[in-house]
Formats: sequence, structure tokens, C-alpha cells
Amino acid sequence: MKPFIVIQTDFSLTWSAVSSMKGVMKIVDPTLQIEDITHDIKNFSPWEASMSLNTVEPYWPKGTVFVSVVDPGVGTSRKASVALLENGNYVVTPDNGALTHLLHRVGVKEIREIDETVNRFKAQEEVSVFHGRDLFGYCAAKLAAGLITFEEVGPAYPVSDIVECEEYYIKPVLGDCHAQGFIQSGLKHFGGVQMNITNEEWKKCGFQLGDTVAIRITHDGEGVFHENVLYHESFGYVKKGDPILYCGSSQYLCLDCNMDNFMAVYGIDSGKEWEIEFTKVGR
Amino acid sequence: MKPFIVIQTDFSLTWSAVSSMKGVMKIVDPTLQIEDITHDIKNFSPWEASMSLNTVEPYWPKGTVFVSVVDPGVGTSRKASVALLENGNYVVTPDNGALTHLLHRVGVKEIREIDETVNRFKAQEEVSVFHGRDLFGYCAAKLAAGLITFEEVGPAYPVSDIVECEEYYIKPVLGDCHAQGFIQSGLKHFGGVQMNITNEEWKKCGFQLGDTVAIRITHDGEGVFHENVLYHESFGYVKKGDPILYCGSSQYLCLDCNMDNFMAVYGIDSGKEWEIEFTKVGR
Amino acid sequence: MKPFIVIQTDFSLTWSAVSSMKGVMKIVDPTLQIEDITHDIKNFSPWEASMSLNTVEPYWPKGTVFVSVVDPGVGTSRKASVALLENGNYVVTPDNGALTHLLHRVGVKEIREIDETVNRFKAQEEVSVFHGRDLFGYCAAKLAAGLITFEEVGPAYPVSDIVECEEYYIKPVLGDCHAQGFIQSGLKHFGGVQMNITNEEWKKCGFQLGDTVAIRITHDGEGVFHENVLYHESFGYVKKGDPILYCGSSQYLCLDCNMDNFMAVYGIDSGKEWEIEFTKVGR
Repeated sequence: MKPFIVIQTDFSLTWSAVSSMKGVMKIVDPTLQIEDITHDIKNFSPWEASMSLNTVEPYWPKGTVFVSVVDPGVGTSRKASVALLENGNYVVTPDNGALTHLLHRVGVKEIREIDETVNRFKAQEEVSVFHGRDLFGYCAAKLAAGLITFEEVGPAYPVSDIVECEEYYIKPVLGDCHAQGFIQSGLKHFGGVQMNITNEEWKKCGFQLGDTVAIRITHDGEGVFHENVLYHESFGYVKKGDPILYCGSSQYLCLDCNMDNFMAVYGIDSGKEWEIEFTKVGR
Repeated sequence: MKPFIVIQTDFSLTWSAVSSMKGVMKIVDPTLQIEDITHDIKNFSPWEASMSLNTVEPYWPKGTVFVSVVDPGVGTSRKASVALLENGNYVVTPDNGALTHLLHRVGVKEIREIDETVNRFKAQEEVSVFHGRDLFGYCAAKLAAGLITFEEVGPAYPVSDIVECEEYYIKPVLGDCHAQGFIQSGLKHFGGVQMNITNEEWKKCGFQLGDTVAIRITHDGEGVFHENVLYHESFGYVKKGDPILYCGSSQYLCLDCNMDNFMAVYGIDSGKEWEIEFTKVGR
Repeated sequence: MKPFIVIQTDFSLTWSAVSSMKGVMKIVDPTLQIEDITHDIKNFSPWEASMSLNTVEPYWPKGTVFVSVVDPGVGTSRKASVALLENGNYVVTPDNGALTHLLHRVGVKEIREIDETVNRFKAQEEVSVFHGRDLFGYCAAKLAAGLITFEEVGPAYPVSDIVECEEYYIKPVLGDCHAQGFIQSGLKHFGGVQMNITNEEWKKCGFQLGDTVAIRITHDGEGVFHENVLYHESFGYVKKGDPILYCGSSQYLCLDCNMDNFMAVYGIDSGKEWEIEFTKVGR
């Protein structure tokens, strides 16, 4: 069976762009199975692209060809690449930071720059703004269909040259029942926020289910939230509308309200200027 | 051929959650055909989940495994269940009201609680907030793939224990060319509203295509709409912007504007506090 | 291999309508491959439907059955049709203008009106508002599955009777390094606008990559934008936030900001009342 192609972009589904990508893939090989991650990655944000890839990557069959097109530099000199991960999955993406989390959590075995002379779709060469369709999608389809080997993608370059997001290097301060970090992502739909603290790091600090935790959030240094919050398994442990701290399925510590939208209720967003501090106060 | 898996959630498609669900299903069996209902069920609303399942259920091949994840009680004691309908379709869902309409229109032959010790995906046991992926999706995939029988889902419990939405028991008052009910759902995208009156009940009241119907809507008892509206087959029977009453494809009586958004124009929403009364005034 | 079915509607994915369409197709033939263009075509706009079909049509395998349901006249006398294009693709659509661009760019070889007596899904005949599911989707599925021939769709009628959008006949004025037209579409998600000037027409005017172009936009005759803008291959040739003119993947000339939303920044929308003029001023 051929590997799955699983796509994320910041194109949205409100126009035909994603469909054109998939159609070109089906022209390459109509039997390919093509699925989606999301097409609502925050516009132009390789950082959000990197976190999304990292969240979903463990939950598809091994050998999957992930395609990520969040490409503010389309048509310029950034590299169009295919990475082979240490676990056998592939990621086809502009090399602009989207590989950051996978590079550290899974590891990249080898990375190659797509050779446009052979692995670019030739229908519309006068247009330079749709590499998602003509370059990333087309090359991913050829790879997944077995029409080219990984070596035939294009020339390899050093894994150490992979572009990383600088936010990744802002590390949390972890202590005894105390932690300090920033809000690395927010999910507007449900309103939960995600810290730059992994579930594993959080547990190593000694926090236990049922603890009450004092949480202080600052925005550019100014206090915007200061409350005692329960840390537990899931939303239903607090009453409707109350904040709750929990280990997220994203592998990172999360904060939301039970059946309400934390971001909207408290006017909180994400980014390195949103700092957050946790201190155990009881249980 | 294996049955289809057809999914609805309140997750939205703006992040990777639905993709993780589908990926885990493909890990179970890469040949499964997985399709969507919608992922924009009103957040935390088993009532809307129940109506959506009821609307779409007749239009997929018999034997389909429907998965519905609108689960405000995730990680608490609500049952995670699989229902076998009288017509051979399956519904995998938290037992929180989402089965209400199907229970009455189609009937549930048997219902079983998912046995987490065997039918839960084991990748991330420290996380309790993503049963859509780890429990409902995984178990549905095993069932659709034929890896477990319905009996192997887990222990059966009485159909009479199924949780129902209380709104279902607010019944319309039906008379001779007169009907009274409430707005049970609204579709923000087009702006139409749906009554708790089936097309069948409506016709039994004696209303006929071409009738003019006086409609009065109250919100918590206060009048918000009072107009004479045409009841006909479709939008194009009134001029652009005018309200029109028609038998909806949802199997319920609907009210909208021709090429305009009834909810937005008149400031109307849905819920049992939005009562509506219909009286024939001419034809 | 059976042809793909590729669907666009103005239904949105926020409710079960698209799913019901696909389910009925799978009842006809569970092996059909069904894909999407978008379901966010501007509500009730055959003009936007026509442009979207035109944009995506070249990028699916030949023989594809495109289904377009933007149908403000559902249930009235407009024709429900299937067009066979000169290149072998099919388009199933209400004949209300949605074929305009394909008629001129690709050509229609033959068009037939769907015979409702044989090619309509019979489950819910009392409902007249969901031809997407019961007529267009069902007939497309029978055609793609090979259960009916194109001749069996229904009676042919003259290609010269196809309904066209009047906007198509507002032609740009093209000169030497000068062009004048209107904004025919806008993409709210990214904020770019598309002119009624093809990439080919634009190049024939003598504009070259690197040119600086004075752009003047008027809305109902009133000036709303007047700036010198770079014409180049892609966004990254100007600094973040600046406007850029480029040949779009839609086959039409486009204007946007680099990593910003042109429509939102300048308060600009689309339609024939939004006129635009281009004059080369240097390079």
C-alpha cells in the first residue's frame, strides 16, 4: 500500500487552492490517499506550522508523507525541502522553521532540496505564487506514488542547516512545584492556551492531579490574570465556566475553562510576550 | 466492502484534532473509508449533535458507523457507547443526549459501553481530554474494520437507560391550520431556522402550498417577529429578501428569507425560549 | 478507474448538507472517489461559482465530473444541467451563469437538462429545497459510476442557450503599458483581489517583471486607492506590508500585500463598481 499524504496549509478551505493541490496529486497518481491536518494554520506562521506538525505526527501510520505549506517566502530564495525523519515519516515543506519541533522530538535523518527542474508541475510556469500546488504537492505525490525515490527529490544538504524558529529556544524555568514559561499557542475555537512546557516537564516539577496552582499571566510584563486554578485530568472536575489546568493531547500543558472560552473570557492570546508562572498553593 | 465511518464533532477544522482521529483510524486499518458530517456542531451541545445525526442518518449506506464527539463531560463518568440502530447503522458517541432523535425516529436495538481496557488507543494514556481520538475513533475503527464484533465493544446496558435531551419533550401544539412550537435550531451560515415541528406534523395541520401564514415569534415571552409569510416549496416563490416558510430537508418545518439571512435580518436565534406560532390567514 | 467527482457549493461545511450529498453518492456507488473544491463560494453567486470552476478545472484529471451547487433558484424553473466540456470534463450545475468562464475558455461540446423522472433521488420527494443532494449529486454519481451515459442524463438543448453572467461582458481596456478593468473577485482569507484581466492580456500590454505601476482604484467613481506598486513574481519582492502586483494562479492579474491583507488594510472589496486602472511609471 502506498503511504498517505497528509496536508496542512494556511490557505483556508474558503477557495479552491487546496483542491488544486489535491487535483495535481491525483493527476500524478489517482490512487493516492490524501488527507488533511488543517488548512487554518495561522497565516504566514512557520511557528504554528511546526507545532501543528508536531502534534499530529505520532497519530498517522509510519511512512506518511506530511506536506506543510505555510510559505510567506514563496517565490524567493528559501529552500523547498523534503525531510526524512528518524522514524521513517517524510515532511515536505519550505525550510522556514516548520521543522523545528520535529527536528528535536523525532529527529531528521536526512533533508533534500526539491530539484525544480524535474520535480515541478509544468502546467503554469509563468506563475510563481503557488508552490503548494506546483512544487510541494507535486513532488510529494511523486514520492508517495513511488515515481521517484527520496534521493531523486534533489540534492541533500546538512541537517544542521535546517532553519529553526527562535521561539523554540526560549526555555521554561522549571523548579519544585513551580514553573515559568510563555503561552506558545492558543486555540480560538475552544479558547484553550498551550504553554511551552511539556506534560513530561510539568510532571517532573512535582505537580499532582488535584493540586491547586496559583497562575499569573503577564502581557509585556503587565499582569492580566492571577487566580488559583485546579490541575486535574479533564474539564469536568471544575464547575461550568471555571478555569482548569490539564495535560493536553498536544503533549504540552494547557489551560482552558470548562465549557467556556478561556481566551475570550480573559482577553488572552499567545506569543512570547504572554508570560505565565505556576506555583503550587495546596491540594 | 467495509462500512463507512462518518464523523461529526464540535472540534472545528481549525486545528489538528480531527486529523489525529482519522490518522488513528488509519493506523487501525488503512483501507477504511472515513467521511465527515460536520465539525462545527455548536460547542458542547448534545442537542445539536442529536439533530445533526438525525438529519444526515438516512443519506448514507446502511451499515455505516457514525461517530459523534460532542463531549463536554470528557474524562468524567458519562458513558462512552456504541448504539446499534434498528436499521443496522451504528452510532459511536458519549451517551449524553446525542442519541435522542435517532432513538425515537429509528430506534436503538442494543447499546454497549466501550470497554476501555481493550478498545482504547494506548499511545497517550496520561492524557484524558481526547477521547474522540483515543476511545470513540479507535473503537469505531476496530468495529468498522471487523477487528471486533459489536458484542466485543463492551457490556450491553438497557436501551431505557439512554440519556435523552429534555428539549425533545417540549412538544408542539398542533391544531387545524394552527401550530405552536419553538425554534429548535438555527443555521447561521444561510440564516434559516428550524422548528420542533416535523414536515409530517405540519401537513397534518392542514397547511397547503400557497397558504399565507401569520407567524409570531417571542423570545422569553416578548414579541420579536409578527408577519404574514408565504408557505411554499422553495425560496424563489417570494421576492428577494422576503421570508418564506417551507418543508426542510432536515425533516422539520423551516423559515428563512429568499437570498437573505433570516436570523441576521430579524435578530433571531434558537432555543426553547424562542417560541413560534403559526396561523393560516389566507391563500 | 471511475472519474472523480469534485464538488463546490455555497453550503459551507458548518452543517450536514455536504455530507448528505456525499452519502447519497456513496449509496449510488460506494467506490466513487469524491473530493471538494470549496463549500464557501459566496452565497447565491453564480459569478463566483463560475470563476472558481474556471480556476480549478485544469488541475484535476481529465474526465472529472465537477458538481457546482450555487442555486438561489432551487425549486423554480431554472434548468438543472450537465455540460460536457470540449476537453472531456463534465460539469453538473444549475444553468444560472456558473458555466460562463468555462464556456469561453474551454468550450461546451454538449449540454443536457437532467430528467427528474429518472435521475432524481426518491427518498424525500416532498422536499424541494435540496437539489444539491437529490438531483445534482445523485445524477453526477450515476454518471460517474457508469450507471447512465451522458445521453441518459436527459434531453440536450442548444449550447447557445446556456445562461451567462453579464459581468463577463464588461471587458478590460488594454493599451500600451496601460490597462483598465474592475475587481472581479476578492479573497477575504488572505486579502488579495483579482482583476478581470488575464495574465496573458496583462503581459501583452507590455508590462514586465520589475515595473513600477501606478494603480488607481475607484468605488462607484470615487477614488479609494492611488499608489505606485511593484509588479513582480511574488510577495517577497517587497517589504512586509507593502502592496504587490503579480500574475495569479487563478490565471488573472492579482494585487495583495506581502504578509498582510490588502482588502482589510485598504477597505476594498470586489464587484463591477470597483474599477481599477494601471499605468506603468518606471522600473
